[in-house]
Amino acid sequence: MTEVEETRRPSRRALIGWGGAGIALGAVAAGGAVALTGAGSGTADAAGAGGAVEFHGAHQAGIATPVQDRLHFAAFDVKTDDREEFVRLLKDWTAAARRMTAGKPVGEGAYGGLPEAPPDDTGEALGLTPCRLTLTIGFGPSLFDRFGLRGRRPEALVDLPEFPGDNLEKTRTGGDLCVQACADDPQVAVHAIRNLARIGFGKVAVRWSQLGFGKTSSTTPDAQTPRNLFGFKDGTRNIAGTETDRLAKHVWVGDGDGPDWMSGGSYLVARRIRMNIETWDRTSLQEQEDVFGRDKREGAPVGRAGEHDAPFLKAMKPTAHVRLAHPDANSGITILRRGYSFTDGTDGLGRLDAGLFFLAYQRDVRHGFIPLQRKLSAHDALNEYIQHVGSAVFAVPPGVRDADDWWGRSLFSKEA
Amino acid sequence: MTEVEETRRPSRRALIGWGGAGIALGAVAAGGAVALTGAGSGTADAAGAGGAVEFHGAHQAGIATPVQDRLHFAAFDVKTDDREEFVRLLKDWTAAARRMTAGKPVGEGAYGGLPEAPPDDTGEALGLTPCRLTLTIGFGPSLFDRFGLRGRRPEALVDLPEFPGDNLEKTRTGGDLCVQACADDPQVAVHAIRNLARIGFGKVAVRWSQLGFGKTSSTTPDAQTPRNLFGFKDGTRNIAGTETDRLAKHVWVGDGDGPDWMSGGSYLVARRIRMNIETWDRTSLQEQEDVFGRDKREGAPVGRAGEHDAPFLKAMKPTAHVRLAHPDANSGITILRRGYSFTDGTDGLGRLDAGLFFLAYQRDVRHGFIPLQRKLSAHDALNEYIQHVGSAVFAVPPGVRDADDWWGRSLFSKEA
Repeated sequence: MTEVEETRRPSRRALIGWGGAGIALGAVAAGGAVALTGAGSGTADAAGAGGAVEFHGAHQAGIATPVQDRLHFAAFDVKTDDREEFVRLLKDWTAAARRMTAGKPVGEGAYGGLPEAPPDDTGEALGLTPCRLTLTIGFGPSLFDRFGLRGRRPEALVDLPEFPGDNLEKTRTGGDLCVQACADDPQVAVHAIRNLARIGFGKVAVRWSQLGFGKTSSTTPDAQTPRNLFGFKDGTRNIAGTETDRLAKHVWVGDGDGPDWMSGGSYLVARRIRMNIETWDRTSLQEQEDVFGRDKREGAPVGRAGEHDAPFLKAMKPTAHVRLAHPDANSGITILRRGYSFTDGTDGLGRLDAGLFFLAYQRDVRHGFIPLQRKLSAHDALNEYIQHVGSAVFAVPPGVRDADDWWGRSLFSKEA
Repeated sequence: MTEVEETRRPSRRALIGWGGAGIALGAVAAGGAVALTGAGSGTADAAGAGGAVEFHGAHQAGIATPVQDRLHFAAFDVKTDDREEFVRLLKDWTAAARRMTAGKPVGEGAYGGLPEAPPDDTGEALGLTPCRLTLTIGFGPSLFDRFGLRGRRPEALVDLPEFPGDNLEKTRTGGDLCVQACADDPQVAVHAIRNLARIGFGKVAVRWSQLGFGKTSSTTPDAQTPRNLFGFKDGTRNIAGTETDRLAKHVWVGDGDGPDWMSGGSYLVARRIRMNIETWDRTSLQEQEDVFGRDKREGAPVGRAGEHDAPFLKAMKPTAHVRLAHPDANSGITILRRGYSFTDGTDGLGRLDAGLFFLAYQRDVRHGFIPLQRKLSAHDALNEYIQHVGSAVFAVPPGVRDADDWWGRSLFSKEA
């Protein structure tokens, strides 16, 4: 394993990672400094592709830090009623996350213990670089029914309402906890979730999990906006990790927002959005472009020439996705999207079980996803081709400050 | 899109791709020449990561060509009884495969047709490099019950027997046809299968499909043997694409093997092997190493120091996986393994639905997978931790020779 060395200079790969924002990275994100590892070769390329993202900071990594290529997201149910045991688990998880994000196995040695004991680490990531692994924890509404936390549930952590067209499966919905693992290699992301689940055995159990891929592509050398599985560029006007003002305004919980333990945190909405791929693929190009309000090849808004030209919303059909979702049509509402495409084999009818695993971070769900989705679920032309089948919401606490800090300390500490 | 330019010099990435064989690539595989694309930057790195693998050759690409990072495998049921229509589909598929493996969209233009028509290509791979995409077709036993093909079914294409411990799910088993799509970017592999399914609409339907990842890692700069989800190195003594003698002996159907239309082809066995991850993770290191017959960290056989040291089989437990599967213990039986790890979320019991999607190519299934699996299914200590839940076997025809040739021509041509 290589040692983590901090640097303020983003690598070429880190620049590529920002393709989703369409903006080259000029400085690292405030409070989420990106630490890059030389990964042996010392080249910028190797550092970016295989390097480590700093685990500590005012905010958790995995929100404003550059988007990696692959995702393994897991929601957990809590199985213990013992607060001390649960706090112990959060501390153990933090220690493991600190090591894994630095490219180290969970145990002090690679296999730490004795031959008679199970290995400290499951081993499949041994010899791999950190691959920009980030691990981000969130607390679901139902967690606050436990451990005497009822009075500490944030008002902003509301249960999501039922939206028109929702067809939620219980087995893909909810969760007391979540961990979002992102990395450039799926083996590294899967390894991380698996080891956290292993450490949590008997105290938590995986409720559901989701793999995602391909919103960005490490194998494509040019920075460009990635395409979703409908073939359209997606994320053209997303918030970039460099835009500290927009992050402060739309993503991070401020000091006055309350409760105090959430300052520097954010709220995460996860939605599994199944796409009716086969229906879409038999739809005319004109209809597809009308539905989105952009042209398919360039991603330019209707009537404009370039992807990044300001959209003229009134030129689009009233039900066009971009027109309905644009901040100008929603009193400025803006969310940070960090979703991934998924393909989970085939359903019983020979259709691909594919779509978008939508992940959005925001300062307050009541002024972010909920009003946006109320509007989209009622009017968006895209609804003919998609269905929301899974849903969850989480309070994402602030970052782990230093080696003594741990996930959730501000929530569980008596003095906070 | 870049143009494909042939070269005999493998790139650095191509060398890395051979990590599974533990042997640096000295020359390209016979009959499956690797064509690399400059991908704009002209560097060896970009060429290898984003380049094109030549579609034409004596053998299909995707067997002896370097292993890519990601897999999307689909089995299809045939829905038409019209032989001419099916042959037309095979020709259309070949044309689409020829273009997609070169990094081009399916249609002549990116979206070819008129605004009133569905696009020729679904678009999500537009702007991406070929990412070493290979597409490999196979014909299942049930295909030969159709189209007057009964007399042309190879004797070597046997229905697999039921092995002890098999727990096969119908929805993951069998198929009239298969296509194996491998690429370094999952978006490219998924795009290819999806577009073939789209072209086949009404004539074929996807029966089941499987995504796979991580037997190699493009983000890891050092060539090394990849690890399976049990944390052990896997594929140390696999056949390398450079070993033309071993390929001729164990993988390619020879001229005298019969039938003629299969000369230069191979036989593929696909098995979805679920791993009981949670049980394994609570097993002692000693037990894990006894089960495999190798040490976990280095991959060295019992009693040896290095991964590539010749194993001393008698030093291993009689039920050790390596001891049972080794060619020396099986009259020299050798298969070319090309499997991928998978993680498909969670089962209803909170356990990861994860394991190995096993793909093995061989000259004759009766002298390859079947005798090996008879032995392993009866004696392998690993059986306590795995279960075979999906199964299929396919005759993989020879390569497409040139721009006029098409998948299955040798099978469907009257004169052949």
